[in-house]
Amino acid sequence: MTESTSSARDVLLAYYYAWTGHDLDKAMTYIADDIVCDAPAGRLQGAAAYREFMGPFVQILTASTLVAAFGDDEKAVVMYDTETMPVKRAPGAECVTVHGGKITHSLFIFDRAPFDAARKAQAEAAR
Amino acid sequence: MTESTSSARDVLLAYYYAWTGHDLDKAMTYIADDIVCDAPAGRLQGAAAYREFMGPFVQILTASTLVAAFGDDEKAVVMYDTETMPVKRAPGAECVTVHGGKITHSLFIFDRAPFDAARKAQAEAAR
Repeated sequence: MTESTSSARDVLLAYYYAWTGHDLDKAMTYIADDIVCDAPAGRLQGAAAYREFMGPFVQILTASTLVAAFGDDEKAVVMYDTETMPVKRAPGAECVTVHGGKITHSLFIFDRAPFDAARKAQAEAAR
Repeated sequence: MTESTSSARDVLLAYYYAWTGHDLDKAMTYIADDIVCDAPAGRLQGAAAYREFMGPFVQILTASTLVAAFGDDEKAVVMYDTETMPVKRAPGAECVTVHGGKITHSLFIFDRAPFDAARKAQAEAAR
């Protein structure tokens, strides 16, 4: 099977196992240069912006468990639970479109509220 | 096809179209009495708690667009974009387990941050 004929789910899972394995370089090989990602804070355009978004999260990630992975030739979804340094339970969901073995669009959902709360608590503790 | 042999995706979609159509009573017919739902604010147990969680959201919902729906016999996921009165873009994801035509477990993900911000802005405006 060549990369371009991989199902969207295969590509999404390869990307998922790369970034949850702290290998952001490998994860980025599945991201199209012109990716459009609708993330909680707004739209990100291009691989550089996407890497800037994922990088800090990969750094604080301590564990991840895959909850579901489904898809067809073009579209796939993953849902997972993550554990991070500031937030002990941070589930996420990604719905991606894949063309030629690369993720060209992503809808990325997670709850920012516990991260905001952790940041605020840390800022208050530092006062 | 009887209800008990419906795929998890069929049940999840029937539930999704019911609540996004503002028919919470119909949506609740797909929810098991002993549902366990892991929602952003924590674990909800039982249909009454689940209804209390969904009710206020259904009331502020103005539009919803299905982004993806996948599943197998037991498990399914939906991802969607919603528009609500306080928050114009509020995507969500649900991963459910279905037994006997009813949703017995749900992992429910959405970003609470814009809702928290809207509530805060409203409270400040009311001062």
